Amino acid sequence: MGALRRRLTRSGIPGLLVTQLADLRYLSGFTGSSAALTVTRRQARLFTDGRYKIQAAEEVGVAQVEIVSAPPATAAVQWLAAQRGVDFACYDPASTYVADLTRSKAALPSGLRRRFLSPLPAPIVQTLRLQKDADELAAMSEAALLGCKLFDYVLGIIRPGLPEIGLAAELEHKARLLGAEAMSFETIVASGARSALPHGRASRSPLPRRGFLTLDFGIIHKGYCSDMTRTVHLGKPNACERAAYEAVLEAQQAAVAAVSSGASCGDVDEAARGVLRKAGLAEAFSHSTGHGVGLEIHEPPRIGAGQKTHLREGMVITIEPGIYLAGQFGIRIEDMVAVTTNGARTLTPAPRALIEL
Amino acid sequence: MGALRRRLTRSGIPGLLVTQLADLRYLSGFTGSSAALTVTRRQARLFTDGRYKIQAAEEVGVAQVEIVSAPPATAAVQWLAAQRGVDFACYDPASTYVADLTRSKAALPSGLRRRFLSPLPAPIVQTLRLQKDADELAAMSEAALLGCKLFDYVLGIIRPGLPEIGLAAELEHKARLLGAEAMSFETIVASGARSALPHGRASRSPLPRRGFLTLDFGIIHKGYCSDMTRTVHLGKPNACERAAYEAVLEAQQAAVAAVSSGASCGDVDEAARGVLRKAGLAEAFSHSTGHGVGLEIHEPPRIGAGQKTHLREGMVITIEPGIYLAGQFGIRIEDMVAVTTNGARTLTPAPRALIEL
Repeated sequence: MGALRRRLTRSGIPGLLVTQLADLRYLSGFTGSSAALTVTRRQARLFTDGRYKIQAAEEVGVAQVEIVSAPPATAAVQWLAAQRGVDFACYDPASTYVADLTRSKAALPSGLRRRFLSPLPAPIVQTLRLQKDADELAAMSEAALLGCKLFDYVLGIIRPGLPEIGLAAELEHKARLLGAEAMSFETIVASGARSALPHGRASRSPLPRRGFLTLDFGIIHKGYCSDMTRTVHLGKPNACERAAYEAVLEAQQAAVAAVSSGASCGDVDEAARGVLRKAGLAEAFSHSTGHGVGLEIHEPPRIGAGQKTHLREGMVITIEPGIYLAGQFGIRIEDMVAVTTNGARTLTPAPRALIEL
Repeated sequence: MGALRRRLTRSGIPGLLVTQLADLRYLSGFTGSSAALTVTRRQARLFTDGRYKIQAAEEVGVAQVEIVSAPPATAAVQWLAAQRGVDFACYDPASTYVADLTRSKAALPSGLRRRFLSPLPAPIVQTLRLQKDADELAAMSEAALLGCKLFDYVLGIIRPGLPEIGLAAELEHKARLLGAEAMSFETIVASGARSALPHGRASRSPLPRRGFLTLDFGIIHKGYCSDMTRTVHLGKPNACERAAYEAVLEAQQAAVAAVSSGASCGDVDEAARGVLRKAGLAEAFSHSTGHGVGLEIHEPPRIGAGQKTHLREGMVITIEPGIYLAGQFGIRIEDMVAVTTNGARTLTPAPRALIEL
């Protein structure tokens, strides 16, 4: 909250409205599903509804809590407009729906409707969230290690005939038993030709006797997401499959090696893309190399072609090149890494060499 | 798509931009996580990125698919602006972020920026989604019955000392094994004094030897959400606890009995609220009586105090009054019901009388 106030002061912003839930949690600790937070130079106030009365009182220390029956954002905007010295307030246009903005404006005194609410000229809470502090890095490392344990566990139960969805069930059950709060996204289990679907949800298809199997999954621990992918092979891979796997692994390792504070996201992407281009697989690599991760599974920065953002210490990103050959197979290898001044610190130390099962 | 086109024609809207994912799925069958759909009098086109090339081709029959590297909504708006006879297009202000709208406008030819995109005067796809057709009702009934099976299953494993999170793990594992695509929201397992948290996520707390236990959970089946709550009692309830339970059950049954096509949502809410008011528990009932459910876990209408919306045949709503006494206990009973001309058809026939374990 101190860092936020310094930025607000520096930007000459007297009042801020925060409605994005991960931003809210980051600033206030509140984990409920509906609230709005206001921050001025002197005060902070969290508006939520009656369902969260007890929970908000327990979780929120940095702001006063007010239980409202109106939409929280509307109540928050009215409160901001009533504060002395707050002649305008900013909202985040990237997480504010047009209709909510219209409704908040309509709730203001008529003289304020046109000018009181202003879009933030640049993200502010999201920018604070980019660089994780020591506590956040510790939580994310724990989350990532829990993910590695899960991978190790499922290696023991993969067998031809098991439905993809059964494998997902075992993985998610184990995650819960190991203390995960939830999965961070829908578990991807894609086997055989289905591994060519980059986002192949676990289906009823049985695992084949021969073929690739891609597992992409993550858990939530202390609010923070983990994310990792491994592709293993059931049965013996042929020379072509093995070569493709080696190319993806080389691309992944090249991108990890390109990570350091100061490197541009586009350069990290190019490190992976260049390897796959040389292997004749440029077309088959149909997505970005990675993305930021934290309280949300997808956060900035995007590690994509031409992205000019520079990595900074404390950022946590994924490095996950993949190739997808429709009707044949797909391969993706993904690690979560923390950016340090000395390069990447890998948070997901599960084996990457091709595993044959 | 036919019903949508008729409404667009009637409203004089030549082009529609759809970006909300549940709306997209409803109209096109596409289940990916990033896309935009355009609908004009003659054409429909779905824009998505390279990750979904194969999946979109498989899932989408009613629209042409275009793979784009720009943000899908931007590409969609540019396409709309290039169509003959489309002199403006509408977007849904309730699901469009201010920043996305700004970016889409900026991508238009300068002469069109100010006037080409217009907010829908009233929800259109969401309105179509309110009343479920026979296929949707069948899927939702299956989803709800799967939820009942899960409740029956967990009754057999509830025992003092089991952590709430362990119970959630067993429930979610069983859900997967029974074929659920995912849980429809974070499973609520709240025992003892924690049952007074309306949204008490499963914690590490062990189930007590004596006290209420609230289970609120749902699964996704064929894309549709189920939602149900039961509160059981570990050990013998005292007279006060028993009376409170009976009051909530009476309130819940009164609200279910008030459901029929033509009834107002406010009247259904009042049916529950009136019972609890008479029991001296008005203050303890701190939320609405229910909400619509479908492809999303929370959909319109809201069954809340003073809501003037009238129920219509085919709507599926929850009826879930509850009371929360901080530091003591909470009780909530929730069914999912389909609105018919003859009243409510309950989709969740699990027992409601107080179960003592």
